[in-house]
Amino acid sequence: MNYGRKFNFSPGPAIMPESVLKKAADEMLNYQGTGISVMEMSHRSKEFEAILKGADDNLRKLLNIPDTYAILYLQGGAHYQFSAIPLNLLGDKKKADYIITGSWSERAAKEAEKYCEVNVVTKPTKFNTIPDKKEWKLSPDAAYVYMCDNETIFGVEFPDIPDTGDIPLVADMSSNFLSRPFDITKFGLVYACAQKNFGMAGLTIVVVRKDLIGNARKDTPMLMDYKLQFDSRSLYNTPSTYCIYIAALIFDWMVEQGGLEAFDKLNKEKSKTIYDAIENSNGFFYSPVDAKCRSRMNIPFLAKDTSLEKLFMEEAGKLDLIGLQGHRSVGAFRASIYNAFPLEGCKKLATFMKDFQEKHEKK
Amino acid sequence: MNYGRKFNFSPGPAIMPESVLKKAADEMLNYQGTGISVMEMSHRSKEFEAILKGADDNLRKLLNIPDTYAILYLQGGAHYQFSAIPLNLLGDKKKADYIITGSWSERAAKEAEKYCEVNVVTKPTKFNTIPDKKEWKLSPDAAYVYMCDNETIFGVEFPDIPDTGDIPLVADMSSNFLSRPFDITKFGLVYACAQKNFGMAGLTIVVVRKDLIGNARKDTPMLMDYKLQFDSRSLYNTPSTYCIYIAALIFDWMVEQGGLEAFDKLNKEKSKTIYDAIENSNGFFYSPVDAKCRSRMNIPFLAKDTSLEKLFMEEAGKLDLIGLQGHRSVGAFRASIYNAFPLEGCKKLATFMKDFQEKHEKK
Repeated sequence: MNYGRKFNFSPGPAIMPESVLKKAADEMLNYQGTGISVMEMSHRSKEFEAILKGADDNLRKLLNIPDTYAILYLQGGAHYQFSAIPLNLLGDKKKADYIITGSWSERAAKEAEKYCEVNVVTKPTKFNTIPDKKEWKLSPDAAYVYMCDNETIFGVEFPDIPDTGDIPLVADMSSNFLSRPFDITKFGLVYACAQKNFGMAGLTIVVVRKDLIGNARKDTPMLMDYKLQFDSRSLYNTPSTYCIYIAALIFDWMVEQGGLEAFDKLNKEKSKTIYDAIENSNGFFYSPVDAKCRSRMNIPFLAKDTSLEKLFMEEAGKLDLIGLQGHRSVGAFRASIYNAFPLEGCKKLATFMKDFQEKHEKK
Repeated sequence: MNYGRKFNFSPGPAIMPESVLKKAADEMLNYQGTGISVMEMSHRSKEFEAILKGADDNLRKLLNIPDTYAILYLQGGAHYQFSAIPLNLLGDKKKADYIITGSWSERAAKEAEKYCEVNVVTKPTKFNTIPDKKEWKLSPDAAYVYMCDNETIFGVEFPDIPDTGDIPLVADMSSNFLSRPFDITKFGLVYACAQKNFGMAGLTIVVVRKDLIGNARKDTPMLMDYKLQFDSRSLYNTPSTYCIYIAALIFDWMVEQGGLEAFDKLNKEKSKTIYDAIENSNGFFYSPVDAKCRSRMNIPFLAKDTSLEKLFMEEAGKLDLIGLQGHRSVGAFRASIYNAFPLEGCKKLATFMKDFQEKHEKK
């Protein structure tokens, strides 16, 4: 890391590739000889069209997205999709299925109750696991089945894609999108906000099967209607142009790094480094999450001796390991290690955890 | 202008102060010694809280906003407000009044028809004027009266604030917010997207009288509910943090430049420079807009000899005067000269117009 930069374990907005930030800074006052910044550029200019097309082409390549799926570049974050999904996908159906495995899917389900009957497919008593599929209660008449592929707060991630038959599967991938390859054709819709794995807050990408577009409730706010966004190529109004530019730079960087296969490998190694440090601590540190569904992106962990928490954060900070505080509903620590977080930082954290234990464990 | 920068007359996203872009570039990789970029910063960090508070304090100071008004920092652009305004302000009323003076107020009225009866207060046959108030038809039972203070496309701006008595006045000020002082207490709600006068696309500021908050329709999408946004200080979910940072830098710059009184004076001088060039051309150039309501922000103008349009754009481009193409529904040229557009550029355009006429006018 250069420029006095630190290892930032923040759950989002989150660390970005240094080379991307450097390029954005270099081009800030004059983008490729245009004499203006991307921030100052009309969304209808040929230069911005080229940026958007570059993002689109790279994203299709990275995820192998077929032409039967549309990519929408929207504002508002995941929370807007909590509303937009029932508004767009219910059609003439009255019910939707929600798989609840953490705070975000729970909040999405609560929002959907404004618009339809919500069937809770499954919900563990504590958000530290994914209940066995044999216990799930799917509805035959649901408009869609909703899931959150990676729950950022509790660090619970689906190890595989559930089979929902003909009923479209909808996934919030806000915190693990582009962190591994997956088969988009198993989903009706996938969405993710940018500020974890592909940029800055202010952009949400929705990848949706084209045949699911066009059934929005009549009183859907205009910009929430996927059809309007699709028909206008996300340019009906001014999109968050600079966020799209930053995402485009990150997609370029991801392609250069070897695409999703390379990130899958790297993210496994990164998360293993930290989980091993937890497991090898003989209970000094521990994970609150079932081993079968531990997230590769967000790693909450606790210290048996809770009185050491403050000291842990302080000493970590001195080593430039920052953003490690756990979410208030889980406590202690959380290491969020999205695509741009370097392996070097995971190793540094693992070493620090070992050193900290040796120094402070009561014998 | 330095860094090879051009005079950018784009209607939005639009020109920004060079010193702000420079500061953003300088701080891109490491914000004030934090070791991270603002793009990578948690919206719950004390550093971001300070940025948001700085923006808030400056905006209250610039506009003299009393404590009876809330400031919301939202995503989605003006179009989201087209939906959010009826959803939040109708309460138990069934009707809203719309003053239609251009494409944007017309589009807002159309969206409102999803939620209530829309009474058109006035609408000229051509969008080149504001009809006399004596001809307006206000409803006694409207939930609010809606107007667009400056119509970006046609360049029509209200010279004063209409009096709507006890019925809250709602104004879209997307393209003239902060360009002159005004009495916020004459409005129930004012909103503006950032990409004209105070930053980059991805941020919309809503200033709303607090007693109007809390009456959203039950099925309002959660993030469109002003009460949720107000109660959480716009931090219920991740806001567009970097857009807020850029707005905060621009507010700092505006205070340094002397506040809204200084911009009012400057914007009058800038627009006069161009309108004078049009008026002094003996009809070679002309304005399609009634003199009483010509915008200080967006100046559409035409050439009597339409065959010269392409040449005008080419020769302007050679002088680094860019973004002058008119909107497709008006044609020819439009000079958008928001707060950050320098007087020097207006003078250069006026000189060029004179030179162009001398060179190309058929004797």
